[in-house]
Amino acid sequence: MAVYTEVPDEALSQFVADYEIGALLSFKGIAEGVENTNYLVHAEAGNFILTLYEKRVNPADLPFFLELMEHLSGKGLTCPLPVRDRNGEALRTLCGRPAALMTFLDGLWVRRPGVEHCRALGGTLAAMHKAALDFPGQRRNALSVDDWRPIFAAVADRADTLQPGLAAEMEGELRFLETNWPKHLPTGIIHADLFPDNVFFLDTRVSGLIDFYFACRDALAYDIAVCLNAWCFEPDLSFNVTKARAMLTAYAGRRRLTGDEYDALPILARGAAMRFFVTRLYDWLNHPPGAFVRPKDPLEYARRLRFHRVVRSAAEYGLD
Amino acid sequence: MAVYTEVPDEALSQFVADYEIGALLSFKGIAEGVENTNYLVHAEAGNFILTLYEKRVNPADLPFFLELMEHLSGKGLTCPLPVRDRNGEALRTLCGRPAALMTFLDGLWVRRPGVEHCRALGGTLAAMHKAALDFPGQRRNALSVDDWRPIFAAVADRADTLQPGLAAEMEGELRFLETNWPKHLPTGIIHADLFPDNVFFLDTRVSGLIDFYFACRDALAYDIAVCLNAWCFEPDLSFNVTKARAMLTAYAGRRRLTGDEYDALPILARGAAMRFFVTRLYDWLNHPPGAFVRPKDPLEYARRLRFHRVVRSAAEYGLD
Repeated sequence: MAVYTEVPDEALSQFVADYEIGALLSFKGIAEGVENTNYLVHAEAGNFILTLYEKRVNPADLPFFLELMEHLSGKGLTCPLPVRDRNGEALRTLCGRPAALMTFLDGLWVRRPGVEHCRALGGTLAAMHKAALDFPGQRRNALSVDDWRPIFAAVADRADTLQPGLAAEMEGELRFLETNWPKHLPTGIIHADLFPDNVFFLDTRVSGLIDFYFACRDALAYDIAVCLNAWCFEPDLSFNVTKARAMLTAYAGRRRLTGDEYDALPILARGAAMRFFVTRLYDWLNHPPGAFVRPKDPLEYARRLRFHRVVRSAAEYGLD
Repeated sequence: MAVYTEVPDEALSQFVADYEIGALLSFKGIAEGVENTNYLVHAEAGNFILTLYEKRVNPADLPFFLELMEHLSGKGLTCPLPVRDRNGEALRTLCGRPAALMTFLDGLWVRRPGVEHCRALGGTLAAMHKAALDFPGQRRNALSVDDWRPIFAAVADRADTLQPGLAAEMEGELRFLETNWPKHLPTGIIHADLFPDNVFFLDTRVSGLIDFYFACRDALAYDIAVCLNAWCFEPDLSFNVTKARAMLTAYAGRRRLTGDEYDALPILARGAAMRFFVTRLYDWLNHPPGAFVRPKDPLEYARRLRFHRVVRSAAEYGLD
């Protein structure tokens, strides 16, 4: 959580003047968002979010992300809608960074999701997958099965400092996943990072999805697998099958899973755990001392992965 | 700039339910405020700021600050107005910290104040001084002339690491200020920290004052001296007499300075520079490596102090 780029008031006033949102009334840096700088902009037309894209986002990907949000908004899915300036541009430059102004979404992200939150999430995830079916944009998943090994290899020699035997365990795990990863599942646009802090709720109703900056084209069921990891474990890392059942049943009620998807769910969940394990491990072992953002514990995902390793079928996730 | 205390959504929802501001729609941590944690709270009744008071604020002082803001608001001066809950309480507890909900002020703080900003500030400062004349609260200035030496003494042995000769220079300066500090100027409630980031503008009109957490009872002209330091030097630390004249003239147009105040202005300005010099020096030499907040350069205030040292009368600040 940090503001990486400080925008002077004069630069912001000039920037906002190019939009049809009335006079600028206030702007404040928001202490959320690990990757980018976000400002809350209050103008006569209401509240907006201004995002400045920092180094971890590839500028070439930004049109894909912004067009996807426009597409989903157009289909009635609530997500930030990029606002176009008087010249029709959604993607602009501010303080030397790519920048976009978005509509502000009401809602709170839930620190401890309950069963009803998981149920609502499942339905919304399926709705998002369906709404994006005719989205033409292309972006490969840059953090899929073939991308994990190079990240792991960069820090594997230090992995055992976290837990003895971790390097060998994950080496074997990577080999298993690379050999057995399903290749022919139904694909579409996935969010790929749908953690609780990216889903806003008003009570138990989903009021919006945010942060599409990992979105890509991949197996739709992989998105479900990410959510199984992110939403259905308790703080002590026990798996809550009631939450998983609610999520999966709500998803399947809106978009029927194929038999292949059903069968693949355990390995996809295992792979999703690996994806977050390797990036967290890398950040854990490479963060500069005194960095703004405290890295997240990679071992939490090692433990999730071990849970999925012994799951024999999606029935154990509560899906009939 | 940081959020020191993370408030869970459930705790915040419960907290907000005690106010007559409708349902909670959103809350976001704000990356501003060096001393406290601030959240932007969006509820059905509008935008609010929730402040959690961190360790540098003495809880015993909070009623003074909140009552002062209520008093000034009641007099028509725009500052955050503490909102009382259904039990009539403005000061409450959240996540183990003293906490208060305030009205949200529109406006931007100006990174590079111009002459018109300084003029508007002068008028508002005088209006604040007059509005607080009948405020009954008592709080001594904990950072006045007698408080500088102990702070300086704690780090004086390392001051020369910043600049050779600095310790001896400031030791002499302290002695001069302690001996010659004016004792019988008109007193009242002063803000004591009215830097540009604590003054909101819409265009060149002051839309509000914030951050009253150094406010106290002291010489009114000392507040002017703080503003001379904070508003009237250019980035290269040259003194802009046009800005000072605009500020002082606007102030005097609303509240006439006494002859003693006029005569005291150079030493007050010199003391105000010392006040920020010693606290910055202390923070500079004591901040933990990798701290969230980067300390500010104390030498900027040594240079301001040297400027004031050779000022012979308030006429050199542009005041006739």
